[in-house]
Amino acid sequence: MENFEFFNPVKILFGKGQIAKLRGAVPAGARLLVTYGSGSIKRNGVYDQVMAALEGHTVSEFSGIEPNPAYETLMKAVAVVKRERIEFLLAVGGGSVLDGTKFIAAAARFEGEPWDILAKHAPVNAAVPLGAVLTLPATGSEMNFFAVISRAGTQEKFPFSSPLVYPKFSIIDPQVTFTLPARQVGNGIVDAFAHVLEQYLTYPANAPLQDRFAESILLTLIEEGPKTLANPADYNSRANLCWCATMALNGLIGLGVPQDWTTHMVGHELTALRGLDHGQTLAVVFPAVLIERKQAKRAKLLQYAERVWGIHAGAEDEKIHQAIQNTRTFFESVGVKTRLKDYGVAPNVVESVSKRLAARGWTTLGERQDIGPKEVEAILSHSL
Amino acid sequence: MENFEFFNPVKILFGKGQIAKLRGAVPAGARLLVTYGSGSIKRNGVYDQVMAALEGHTVSEFSGIEPNPAYETLMKAVAVVKRERIEFLLAVGGGSVLDGTKFIAAAARFEGEPWDILAKHAPVNAAVPLGAVLTLPATGSEMNFFAVISRAGTQEKFPFSSPLVYPKFSIIDPQVTFTLPARQVGNGIVDAFAHVLEQYLTYPANAPLQDRFAESILLTLIEEGPKTLANPADYNSRANLCWCATMALNGLIGLGVPQDWTTHMVGHELTALRGLDHGQTLAVVFPAVLIERKQAKRAKLLQYAERVWGIHAGAEDEKIHQAIQNTRTFFESVGVKTRLKDYGVAPNVVESVSKRLAARGWTTLGERQDIGPKEVEAILSHSL
Repeated sequence: MENFEFFNPVKILFGKGQIAKLRGAVPAGARLLVTYGSGSIKRNGVYDQVMAALEGHTVSEFSGIEPNPAYETLMKAVAVVKRERIEFLLAVGGGSVLDGTKFIAAAARFEGEPWDILAKHAPVNAAVPLGAVLTLPATGSEMNFFAVISRAGTQEKFPFSSPLVYPKFSIIDPQVTFTLPARQVGNGIVDAFAHVLEQYLTYPANAPLQDRFAESILLTLIEEGPKTLANPADYNSRANLCWCATMALNGLIGLGVPQDWTTHMVGHELTALRGLDHGQTLAVVFPAVLIERKQAKRAKLLQYAERVWGIHAGAEDEKIHQAIQNTRTFFESVGVKTRLKDYGVAPNVVESVSKRLAARGWTTLGERQDIGPKEVEAILSHSL
Repeated sequence: MENFEFFNPVKILFGKGQIAKLRGAVPAGARLLVTYGSGSIKRNGVYDQVMAALEGHTVSEFSGIEPNPAYETLMKAVAVVKRERIEFLLAVGGGSVLDGTKFIAAAARFEGEPWDILAKHAPVNAAVPLGAVLTLPATGSEMNFFAVISRAGTQEKFPFSSPLVYPKFSIIDPQVTFTLPARQVGNGIVDAFAHVLEQYLTYPANAPLQDRFAESILLTLIEEGPKTLANPADYNSRANLCWCATMALNGLIGLGVPQDWTTHMVGHELTALRGLDHGQTLAVVFPAVLIERKQAKRAKLLQYAERVWGIHAGAEDEKIHQAIQNTRTFFESVGVKTRLKDYGVAPNVVESVSKRLAARGWTTLGERQDIGPKEVEAILSHSL
């Protein structure tokens, strides 16, 4: 096990009716900005629950944060924060609204050009405090300090992180997710699954507890994911999906172990260039990464085959092949296709992605930092 | 899954050489009190590492915190905190030193008789901030807000809890535990294992991720515990034991599920009355609880038998019997005996414990709050 530091001060309020606790959770007397997306929260009752809980507070609103939140949109919110001297941000939505609000929080206190936080890893030294009401189990943004932001003008999509953008609290009421479209639930299951694989499917690092925690999330997603798709209003299976998605990327399972993240970084390019949903890109890229990297990941792929998929018979190569096949089948079973052609994306995207990575000098993806543009081409060739 | 709240802001610094990071972890310029036990930290080099890291700080010391930390001792430390206007406490030791320091932190800021925090659940409204350097993997005190304090004068042992006594940080360097006596390592393994069982072996609550996380810790303790006893200086197995012990009682696996804690509450009486080590009491009481409560815990005992001990053959009652037997054998295998007679304790202790519980009106132990003094007698009758 490698040395690690762990600090996650997000307060989680989980379960039925927890949105009412907003009243005590937001700072008394603070000028609040509630951020949200396209307005689905007005149709499913979440907006009303939030506003009822915030009665008596000074509340402004900023709506229209899109999937793959755009820098251009978020900078309009930054102007609101400055103009109205906002003291606390409340993100109400899924990962895009949460990520976008984290960027608003940092950008509003940033001296200089906020795009540098994303493009140049400029350090975040201050942020407006924020909280969250989650409406879509997927990204884990409710309990971590990461965010991924897009720029429409340049078709770019970059991550940033800072402990200063940890939500002070996150409210997770599984009931408010019952009305989500199946496409978003399926994407969320794939996203959570992929978050675990990025931290688990690397090479052995003498960290058996982290391995078993990761396998616990994978097994529970495989068990509960199809149940919640078949019966969206079943509280328990939806609650279990929600908690899996949060635990998949709150830092815990990645402590002291190598991490990959190739699939996410390549997937971001596919979203930026071709507009695929984030979950769709992961379903396309992950099986391809596993095929291309099956020697580098051999020991963990065998462990994954045995412990997650229960594959005990056959030669090692057969077990690995079957585990990768099962992964693909699982993604498809929750409604997320796993080939670029399923999304009408032509093979020339492979070269486009590779060239963009090369232009940025990103030649060190993967748990061994040995994946560059050429290796990405090889990976994507398995995803056509 | 039941509703839950989770908030754990302890910063963990885990791994080789992390004690040097104390320099940046304690508040600059604060008057510090370093608390420790009998002085083993002076023999194993931990004291020197701590003092080197704290060079330049204003440091006082309070030593002599005993196993099962005594109220009488801790109140002497409270007097030091007040007299020297201490602003930060640094606990260096195992669970007893950490628990004792949490009580010092709360008692030094308590208006009234601090014993009421323990005996009357008086609320803790303020506490001196504290940090910890852990030297014994066992109690999880390094990442929770619980403490258990004894009173020598009245042979009592009571728990208290408050988010105000969360350590600001805890440093866990597995290397400093290499020189621990096997008895303490074995007790620690049993303690961590019992912490998991108290939160897991109850009744099903539609919380499959919490179940699998609990099983992950149990499986890893079964795998790594004997390894670290056989080879105390093997870094990886000791590191894995340390991380299991921390995760066993930092709140995570108990979220949204019923909890028992009968074994701990009865065990505290055995320590208070007969002086058994905490780990010894758990090894004695837990198998007895499982025997007495095997109908109430039937579904989870079967799950435990299958998933933790790999018992798939035989009738249900046989599986349960075997799982309880395996638990007993595991405790014995790490050097902790499981019968009262092994510790020279006569059967009359059963009535003494039962009478004490009755006198305090504690009739609501267990995950269904249906265990009173009579049931405790029945339990302890299996432990002779």
